[in-house]
Amino acid sequence: MTAAGLAAPSRPAVVDLRSDTVTTPTPAMRRAMAEAEVGDDVYAEDPTVRALEERVAGLMGHEAALFVPSGTMGNQIGMRLVCEPGQEVLCDADAHVVTYEMGAAAAVFGLSTRTVVSDGGRLDADQLIAQVRPRGNWHLTATAAIAVENTHNRGGGLVQPLDQLQRLWKWSREAGVAVHLDGARLFNASVASGIDLATYGRLADTASVCLSKGLGAPVGSVLVSSSERIATARLWRKRLGGGMRQAGVLAAAGLHALDHHLDRLAEDHEHARMLAKRLGVDPASVETNMVVLDDVPAAVIAEAARARGVLVSQVSERRIRLVTHLDVDRAGVERAADVLAELL
Amino acid sequence: MTAAGLAAPSRPAVVDLRSDTVTTPTPAMRRAMAEAEVGDDVYAEDPTVRALEERVAGLMGHEAALFVPSGTMGNQIGMRLVCEPGQEVLCDADAHVVTYEMGAAAAVFGLSTRTVVSDGGRLDADQLIAQVRPRGNWHLTATAAIAVENTHNRGGGLVQPLDQLQRLWKWSREAGVAVHLDGARLFNASVASGIDLATYGRLADTASVCLSKGLGAPVGSVLVSSSERIATARLWRKRLGGGMRQAGVLAAAGLHALDHHLDRLAEDHEHARMLAKRLGVDPASVETNMVVLDDVPAAVIAEAARARGVLVSQVSERRIRLVTHLDVDRAGVERAADVLAELL
Amino acid sequence: MTAAGLAAPSRPAVVDLRSDTVTTPTPAMRRAMAEAEVGDDVYAEDPTVRALEERVAGLMGHEAALFVPSGTMGNQIGMRLVCEPGQEVLCDADAHVVTYEMGAAAAVFGLSTRTVVSDGGRLDADQLIAQVRPRGNWHLTATAAIAVENTHNRGGGLVQPLDQLQRLWKWSREAGVAVHLDGARLFNASVASGIDLATYGRLADTASVCLSKGLGAPVGSVLVSSSERIATARLWRKRLGGGMRQAGVLAAAGLHALDHHLDRLAEDHEHARMLAKRLGVDPASVETNMVVLDDVPAAVIAEAARARGVLVSQVSERRIRLVTHLDVDRAGVERAADVLAELL
Amino acid sequence: MTAAGLAAPSRPAVVDLRSDTVTTPTPAMRRAMAEAEVGDDVYAEDPTVRALEERVAGLMGHEAALFVPSGTMGNQIGMRLVCEPGQEVLCDADAHVVTYEMGAAAAVFGLSTRTVVSDGGRLDADQLIAQVRPRGNWHLTATAAIAVENTHNRGGGLVQPLDQLQRLWKWSREAGVAVHLDGARLFNASVASGIDLATYGRLADTASVCLSKGLGAPVGSVLVSSSERIATARLWRKRLGGGMRQAGVLAAAGLHALDHHLDRLAEDHEHARMLAKRLGVDPASVETNMVVLDDVPAAVIAEAARARGVLVSQVSERRIRLVTHLDVDRAGVERAADVLAELL
Repeated sequence: MTAAGLAAPSRPAVVDLRSDTVTTPTPAMRRAMAEAEVGDDVYAEDPTVRALEERVAGLMGHEAALFVPSGTMGNQIGMRLVCEPGQEVLCDADAHVVTYEMGAAAAVFGLSTRTVVSDGGRLDADQLIAQVRPRGNWHLTATAAIAVENTHNRGGGLVQPLDQLQRLWKWSREAGVAVHLDGARLFNASVASGIDLATYGRLADTASVCLSKGLGAPVGSVLVSSSERIATARLWRKRLGGGMRQAGVLAAAGLHALDHHLDRLAEDHEHARMLAKRLGVDPASVETNMVVLDDVPAAVIAEAARARGVLVSQVSERRIRLVTHLDVDRAGVERAADVLAELL
Repeated sequence: MTAAGLAAPSRPAVVDLRSDTVTTPTPAMRRAMAEAEVGDDVYAEDPTVRALEERVAGLMGHEAALFVPSGTMGNQIGMRLVCEPGQEVLCDADAHVVTYEMGAAAAVFGLSTRTVVSDGGRLDADQLIAQVRPRGNWHLTATAAIAVENTHNRGGGLVQPLDQLQRLWKWSREAGVAVHLDGARLFNASVASGIDLATYGRLADTASVCLSKGLGAPVGSVLVSSSERIATARLWRKRLGGGMRQAGVLAAAGLHALDHHLDRLAEDHEHARMLAKRLGVDPASVETNMVVLDDVPAAVIAEAARARGVLVSQVSERRIRLVTHLDVDRAGVERAADVLAELL
Repeated sequence: MTAAGLAAPSRPAVVDLRSDTVTTPTPAMRRAMAEAEVGDDVYAEDPTVRALEERVAGLMGHEAALFVPSGTMGNQIGMRLVCEPGQEVLCDADAHVVTYEMGAAAAVFGLSTRTVVSDGGRLDADQLIAQVRPRGNWHLTATAAIAVENTHNRGGGLVQPLDQLQRLWKWSREAGVAVHLDGARLFNASVASGIDLATYGRLADTASVCLSKGLGAPVGSVLVSSSERIATARLWRKRLGGGMRQAGVLAAAGLHALDHHLDRLAEDHEHARMLAKRLGVDPASVETNMVVLDDVPAAVIAEAARARGVLVSQVSERRIRLVTHLDVDRAGVERAADVLAELL
Repeated sequence: MTAAGLAAPSRPAVVDLRSDTVTTPTPAMRRAMAEAEVGDDVYAEDPTVRALEERVAGLMGHEAALFVPSGTMGNQIGMRLVCEPGQEVLCDADAHVVTYEMGAAAAVFGLSTRTVVSDGGRLDADQLIAQVRPRGNWHLTATAAIAVENTHNRGGGLVQPLDQLQRLWKWSREAGVAVHLDGARLFNASVASGIDLATYGRLADTASVCLSKGLGAPVGSVLVSSSERIATARLWRKRLGGGMRQAGVLAAAGLHALDHHLDRLAEDHEHARMLAKRLGVDPASVETNMVVLDDVPAAVIAEAARARGVLVSQVSERRIRLVTHLDVDRAGVERAADVLAELL
């Protein structure tokens, strides 16, 4: 038992840099979960879930919010709210919503997705706008929405330029095309850029933010939009099987994370820069909590690192990704740097 | 702080008989959750989730299992595993899968559902078998699966007759039609009938059991089937947005519930019989933890009871449902009986 | 070559009473098709298709119409226009849309279908209304539309009572629930009842009528609704692959049929009554062009009749259906009656 | 009346170079349609449809074939036969299946589509192969099939290189990825390259060819594949509403076109080269029946040409497409060349 009255979960001896999704809840977060006041959230009676939803809606500058079990559900319902079956969502070819969400847009909702190849994930509003297809045409698939990812995962955690987000938003209002923001790591973007969440949030019709990445909560994302859209989202969440009963035990972790783990993301960013420096990666390429090693024999390095207690993510044959997070402290970063520097 | 080192959650002053989904986790369950060893379950690395899955697979007599956020997800993926878009699932007209799951089968998976009106939810295998439509016909929608619910929710918690389940299963093997078991309350069925879970489980190709009803866990259901089907189910769970990261915090509650709350379902059943007796309902109609009051002015009674601190569920204009569970003790049952007896 | 300059198609020696879909185009209809002025209907430039669409819209009392390749496409798009994925269409358990259209509503459009068992297909408005489920509920599948079939195929060609259609329509306006009319054989209903098509048409939000049943055109149905809905229907037709180029060759047959084959449906009805009389079937049960033989060894009779040159439809083990149509003249009816009377 | 006993359809005074879909049936084709022997093809009893299906299956080197109302239906069912909901089809970004088929893959079948930007539509097998994603991964959308278009419409009618088709096919056999051929204009490719249809056909698991483009039939495409897949395709055709009754009237036009309009495609190609020469377009860029005018004020030219009786297709702001076909003879080509040369 720790001082907090809870058994400390055993921390793995390895330094796990595969993803910021691997964090395990801290003792204080576990306590918050254990003490959460709960109710039946399918009846919208869970006070902790409601508190979390209200808080995130406020942070993001939106009317309403919905707690969902995953970023995939947040993104996919978010896109469904602004795109009908037979229409398309346009996005970057490396976007999470088309790369890592298993074809959900088409399979679950009948939405087409179409992509443009961007410059490493960096948003170029005009490039996307040029690809938009009109509604009501008898041949073309109408573009109903554009999805933007910030920070951009496959882009190595890059922060989208505010002027491009603003340009896209301004155009979208005139064009009648919606904007969905995949903000899985928007907290990182905000901390890195100093631009507040609501500024980003107000440049999207629907946005999803994730509590179980850098923030370190075990489970959950929050989708924000207008009250009317969130009411529809609630129906879709139930239909997809995402309606959970006493979900307050999870929401409590999210609230705790917002209180205690938001500002500290700066540390993760500092750690990533340290890693980059040690490994000869241009520090300018490290905008948040990811370091990309290019032109390396990824499988060999990953295997050798694993043998020495450092886990990394193999993105492609020649690319490795390192992600810093709550469960890797400075000593861990240094240890990983030592191991990887030697291997490279 | 309680002796256990955790703040006791405030119990509502009301007696809530609306559903067994409203239970809140006990202090001991909260402790189990707080102490859970966890990992990233999207990478299948959460030891507590794996332990729960193995345990439930074993209990149900199936090869493999998958933890999902809700009974709806368990049922819908379960049906999808044995039915293709364009085919149909046949079931009772009052089945949960077609009544309370928001059209997911069609909307999410493209599965047709067709129903027969049963005698109060009681399975009559031959009645269903007579309605099955063949494959390969150029007009008819082929019947790929039959879904059975045990206990039957809208049937007032009735336990399906074993001989009918066996008859259906035997026929289904010859006919090449699959059987899905919605076992949201199979734990109640097993405790009431004395028939073990595996006996029920082995009469189905896919089955879903729920941890957040009578067992009192806050969140989650478990889907069981063959290893091959569960591997496919894992892909669908991710696609639907049901892949959760450190889900061990929830699975720990499920394991605790299986250890501590399974046998005690007999108490809930006894409480239901007590209620029935006090309210003039035929005790023979109370097979598990539900009491149905028919031919009553449901809205009026529900409102008046609420004013006196007793919550009930209004199923239709003339029907009220009472559900006993972990959070209603004998004193609560007596208080509810007093209030309702006076009102009736 | 016939007088018309066209080779007469060889008429089959058999009397085919399986369905009124088996009719082959008459020499005059073939001439009309061969002389049709055509254009590219995907560009809405086919004058004959447009003429047919305007004519049917007018006959049905609707703003606009769309020519589609089949009754299935007409019905399914019609229902999709008034029902969203996740919502349900309510109808009779024997309705063509849920029995013979291969699960299209769910598979193609994500629409749930739910059924009530009617009295032999006869519309009882209140029975359906009692089953309607509300919108916005967090559990129930909302009922967005009710589908009615007139005449009712599996009901033996019965004509739906006008007062029930009116009762349903009136209720639906207040309830915000749409009505779709499967009018595959509405021409038969109108001729039999003397009620004009527009009277029926105006009691539905969307309606589909078929040209290739009693009317004898080779291919095609027409969907009618408001101009706005038909514009959406045109997009769905293209998406389903129902956009045809010089479809005027088919539409010409439809126009010819409306000119020459509509009134003569009375003959088919007379023929059906003759058959019923000869075969001991209550003539009151024969409202249009179908005769149902119940409690007969269907397979045996069908096989024996086939051997004698009379084709009939085996609906179930104990039921045979006879359908009169354009390609069966009085002599054919008498021959079929002789053969069947002897066999029965 | 013509000598053939049929009124000659009035030919439009304009020269319509918008598409080869605008051709109207010739008198001889109309006669063939008018004399067609027909049956109920939903019962697979139409002899002319069956003859057409057998003929095209043979030409394409496949076991079986299915007549469908449109190229869109042929392509979409073809892709569905080799791709499951949740998987993806990979193709060129300008492919007809993702550009002009209204999002059917996702909306109707739940298939994801993903694209690569090719060099003007020209197949580069290795470029596609490099993008394939594996099956069974818990994040990625598995690539089940690759779709190839030959000739390539937006590529200006280019003929795909045989060696690339062979390279793709060889790889696909080892990789377990299927190949679908959108052969809407495969007849043009075959006539231009001298490579027979079966050689192309055998390099695909499923292929669709269109009768209503260069061949000049009014309606219809034919999908070819194995017998087993075509049996499944027949069910999907019915489900989509593509099951037509006496479709022999259309199939007769297809058979006539194969007899009389196949070899003459060489004329259209010659006409296209003439146009290119007159308009200063590199004749090497004209491989079949299309001429692309780039860097022109498309809307202005199109409007001015229309005023002078020449219709062209405006593909984008700066691109015009001219398509030669059966209904534009040499005089028409010269007239169009005169008009356009003057305008350019």
